[in-house]
Amino acid sequence: MTDPLQPGATIGILGGGQLGRMLSVAASRLGFKTHIFEPGANPPAGDVAHMVTTAPYEDEAALAAFAASVDVITYEFENIPTAALDVLEQHRPIRPGREALRVSQDRLTEKAFLQDLGLQTAPFADIPDQVALDAALAEIGAPAILKTRRFGYDGKGQARIMTAEDAAPALASLAGAPAILEGFVNFTHEASVIAARSPSGEVACFDPGENVHRDGILHTTTVPARLSQSQRMDAVLMAAKILNALDYVGVMGVELFVTPKGLVVNEIAPRVHNSGHWTQNGCAVDQFEQHIRAVVSWPLGDGQRHSDVVMENLIGDDVIRIPELARERDCALHLYGKADAKPGRKMGHINRVIRAQK
Amino acid sequence: MTDPLQPGATIGILGGGQLGRMLSVAASRLGFKTHIFEPGANPPAGDVAHMVTTAPYEDEAALAAFAASVDVITYEFENIPTAALDVLEQHRPIRPGREALRVSQDRLTEKAFLQDLGLQTAPFADIPDQVALDAALAEIGAPAILKTRRFGYDGKGQARIMTAEDAAPALASLAGAPAILEGFVNFTHEASVIAARSPSGEVACFDPGENVHRDGILHTTTVPARLSQSQRMDAVLMAAKILNALDYVGVMGVELFVTPKGLVVNEIAPRVHNSGHWTQNGCAVDQFEQHIRAVVSWPLGDGQRHSDVVMENLIGDDVIRIPELARERDCALHLYGKADAKPGRKMGHINRVIRAQK
Repeated sequence: MTDPLQPGATIGILGGGQLGRMLSVAASRLGFKTHIFEPGANPPAGDVAHMVTTAPYEDEAALAAFAASVDVITYEFENIPTAALDVLEQHRPIRPGREALRVSQDRLTEKAFLQDLGLQTAPFADIPDQVALDAALAEIGAPAILKTRRFGYDGKGQARIMTAEDAAPALASLAGAPAILEGFVNFTHEASVIAARSPSGEVACFDPGENVHRDGILHTTTVPARLSQSQRMDAVLMAAKILNALDYVGVMGVELFVTPKGLVVNEIAPRVHNSGHWTQNGCAVDQFEQHIRAVVSWPLGDGQRHSDVVMENLIGDDVIRIPELARERDCALHLYGKADAKPGRKMGHINRVIRAQK
Repeated sequence: MTDPLQPGATIGILGGGQLGRMLSVAASRLGFKTHIFEPGANPPAGDVAHMVTTAPYEDEAALAAFAASVDVITYEFENIPTAALDVLEQHRPIRPGREALRVSQDRLTEKAFLQDLGLQTAPFADIPDQVALDAALAEIGAPAILKTRRFGYDGKGQARIMTAEDAAPALASLAGAPAILEGFVNFTHEASVIAARSPSGEVACFDPGENVHRDGILHTTTVPARLSQSQRMDAVLMAAKILNALDYVGVMGVELFVTPKGLVVNEIAPRVHNSGHWTQNGCAVDQFEQHIRAVVSWPLGDGQRHSDVVMENLIGDDVIRIPELARERDCALHLYGKADAKPGRKMGHINRVIRAQK
């Protein structure tokens, strides 16, 4: 499928969280319907979707029926079981493609892929066992961070190693999951590029945002980021290199460490990304619509920013600030319709639009 | 109900067209669900709603079940049958209230209401029959325009009278419907104010837009409008006067003629308005969210504009321009998901964002 899909077509989305929700809204702006596939009941994306299938990823009949009902399939998260993808791709194209998922589902594969492209990453080593961990620590040095190769997000599945004594308990905390050791990168700040690529190979990037994390979760993204003109150019070229190497279709988030020795790739996410939420109030075409445009073979937006924005995540109890935030000038609320404000749970975000002084 | 509704509550929307669709999306941004009531099958709003009821306005059981499933009721069009409102309001509050509907459903009542407030309108006369029409034409003069008192929109239910000879055929064309004769206003251009009022009486207005019509249908809205500072102030004060007089809750569109003798009210619409679509890409809180905020008793956005915008409607065959528009820089597409591009049918709109020169 490289012909553009026409308005009225249906986009299947794997995952019904806030990213699926905002993808669904973006699809509606282009006249498309969406069908959400999500194991959990009452998914946030279901409030704004044409259809919802509630079924586990092991339900092959449900997967096949879902695939048959849509024109193209995309996803909001990278940890989709391989067997489910095998079923789905028999029926409809999956965008972004399998290669992007294969690479980004495994931290070790991802790091090796980036290194092969000539991009800087944190020093890393495969950690099959304690012997390997000791050897890697001796080479990389502490502090370092031990991570599961798969299924980590928002700081989960990670253990810091400050001294050699932390090594054994850190490995034990991962309960035998395949792991990778990553050395610390001495960075001044973090940035990310939200990049998109169309089936025809067209690439467009939004301006890099500067990210601040709290407790391992993104707290704010500020656009523009503190980057020199050449760093900006580097960031875009690096993102384009990654997308082209994967023959990628869709939006990708590329997280970067800004260091005195250049930009270091932290990780890549083959989907719309929290650090791209600012685009909803800063660009005519936001990252969600950009992803949909790529997936349906439409022309990409050029990523042009009309306003500066500071995005702030609303996590857990932050919901008590909503009445106050609703009164704030130039503050755009984006709530996800989740029932329970559990600690660490992303409940929404705000985009503060910085108006140009005229 | 004056306590704010909490995220997770459900907003009932009467009418499933593009306005209901965009209201539903705005509700989702604040964490609300929506339930659409619409007689027609496959309504555009249904693609982005939590629930849809397909039933005629005469189905009292369906109306009652719909009302019982929601926390508050609003609407996207003013011509809701009175009997349906009688059923609905037994269950849940309807916002904006009945008085706004009573006044705006009838051109004669509306004109008299505006005149009573001391606002300028076109000269007008009640036209029960040919005798009244002849007398009114003698007083108001030709050219004039004969309109049905109820159920007119986008230039429908209207007949121009250029000379006295047009009078009889014009009256015949309305097929006995109660009518009003309106004199022509000598205006330089048209503007509109999108105003909002909360249950507590807070009023907020967006900057006036300048409207250009083609074939009786809105073609473009440009913001800012060509208005002097005092005209801008007048426009806002007039809108506030109207909203306060109706004890109004929600967003209203107030259409104005700009004349050398001041601003003349053309008509009012007790709902979000086509001439307010620019706010989607010009403000942190757009007219759809503003309406939802009023309806659920949340604080209103202040109407601040961060960018200048030119909105253009896509009517009928304009859909063939979509691929080209999708390539245009700073152009935000908003398509309504309608299947057939019939002549005169509103298929979508674009907002061209005018970036500030830095």
